Amino acid sequence: MQPIKVYADRRSQPSRAVIIFCRVNRIDFEEVTVDLFKSQHFSPEFKKINPMGQVPAIVDGRFKLFESHAILRYLSSVFPGVADHWYPADLFTRAKIEAILDWHHSNLRRGAATFVLNTVLAPYLGLPSSHEAAKQAEKLLLKSLTRIESIWLKGDAKFLMGNPQPSIADLSLVCEIMQLEILGDSARDRILGPYEKISSWIQNVKKATSPHFEEVHELLFKVKAHNSAVAAAKLGSELSKDLKTASKL
Amino acid sequence: MQPIKVYADRRSQPSRAVIIFCRVNRIDFEEVTVDLFKSQHFSPEFKKINPMGQVPAIVDGRFKLFESHAILRYLSSVFPGVADHWYPADLFTRAKIEAILDWHHSNLRRGAATFVLNTVLAPYLGLPSSHEAAKQAEKLLLKSLTRIESIWLKGDAKFLMGNPQPSIADLSLVCEIMQLEILGDSARDRILGPYEKISSWIQNVKKATSPHFEEVHELLFKVKAHNSAVAAAKLGSELSKDLKTASKL
Ligand SMILES: N[C@@H](CCC(=O)N[C@@H](CS)C(=O)NCC(=O)O)C(=O)O
Ligand SMILES: N[C@@H](CCC(=O)N[C@@H](CS)C(=O)NCC(=O)O)C(=O)O
Repeated sequence: MQPIKVYADRRSQPSRAVIIFCRVNRIDFEEVTVDLFKSQHFSPEFKKINPMGQVPAIVDGRFKLFESHAILRYLSSVFPGVADHWYPADLFTRAKIEAILDWHHSNLRRGAATFVLNTVLAPYLGLPSSHEAAKQAEKLLLKSLTRIESIWLKGDAKFLMGNPQPSIADLSLVCEIMQLEILGDSARDRILGPYEKISSWIQNVKKATSPHFEEVHELLFKVKAHNSAVAAAKLGSELSKDLKTASKL
Repeated sequence: MQPIKVYADRRSQPSRAVIIFCRVNRIDFEEVTVDLFKSQHFSPEFKKINPMGQVPAIVDGRFKLFESHAILRYLSSVFPGVADHWYPADLFTRAKIEAILDWHHSNLRRGAATFVLNTVLAPYLGLPSSHEAAKQAEKLLLKSLTRIESIWLKGDAKFLMGNPQPSIADLSLVCEIMQLEILGDSARDRILGPYEKISSWIQNVKKATSPHFEEVHELLFKVKAHNSAVAAAKLGSELSKDLKTASKL
């Protein structure tokens, strides 16, 4: 059998979720990097893979698919080696996981992705950003985190809905929250600090998918380090300007 | 067997999709109206049904579920009377439908719902609205409509992906687009006018689910008529003001 192809950029949350999933479940795959910062997702070749021009996308023989949740469901269904807890056959448990996956798009993802875009990403990419949009997005992000804790991580739940093992919903949502790393430590702590259950849940998902989780997130931490260095340099040059101004007084 | 309970407000797109689905598939259900305009979704009783405080939600015996797509998948899976085309067992066809359902949240729905909110709905409900948000949302809405036509309604497709019969994705997306009715005829025509394939697709979904489609949409058309009457009255009073001003010149 030919390995499937996974078109991804590891700086993208849903891309990371799909790659981690394939590695944890020993799915034979070839990773094809689509560099978003180089606009490779706009190329005519990639548009033939995903006409929406987004990552992740997969190709399995003649079959093409995009949207990370659809991909995770598909992989769970066609690879017999994938353990049931990822996408349970039981209709009731599955339906509850579907509800979380669906809820994610308009809540946690909309909040987190819009916040990151309008704070660190847009300036970094030279795109316009809006303070108002960032403010709204932060509100939605915090509300989403509060709801995850109070609804799906009640009591001493290890994974969402108190399941003993992670599902594709745990993986998708945790990869989204990990994106907050690129805000830098202090902004991340300000946002996540109050959410103790979220923090232990992230650790649980990490442990359950180690060492793949850490390895696939390495690039994100590199971007974060780069951002901090740029911010420090900027701060440094502002400080030295201030000093120069001060010396003139 | 007890009928399932469907908590819904027919002014809500995903609520209508679930109700139409139940009626077309002769699922025995009791509709419980949660009046959004009277804030009934914030009541403690409803929060016990759906802690997110949104419609639609269902109760099937001891089982509770929210998120319309999760509900439509669940109903398709547990009611043997539901024809396969709604949510095909074939893994490849199903995966493609999942991709459309997932894509919907961050594209067509985000565009359409945010546009309607920031143009007619917010003023109507006394909520703040943003011109900038409306502009952004309209762009996303038009882009989404273009993509539906060029990707999923290619050639003379009757339903999404050229399927001969509708799936839950057809129903969900068409109910979303129907929401544009409350903008009034001229704004709706300005937006939908250029999209001929979308217009015939709406007609196809309507025919395939008639007379339930029309009946469940009746309330939407009442809201629309009311809005037009209010707008006409406002226009009338502005005209008469203008006439008075003119008579003073
Ligand atoms: N709902 C989609 C989201 C995909 C998505 O937003 N991908 C981003 C990267 S995280 C992308 O490719 N953005 C490029 C663009 O939209 O132009 C999924 O879960 O796969
Ligand atoms: N993704 C959800 C959306 C549900 C939703 O947005 N419901 C709206 C009505 S269309 C609602 O209940 N709004 C009230 C609120 O959010 O306070 C679904 O498909 O069920």
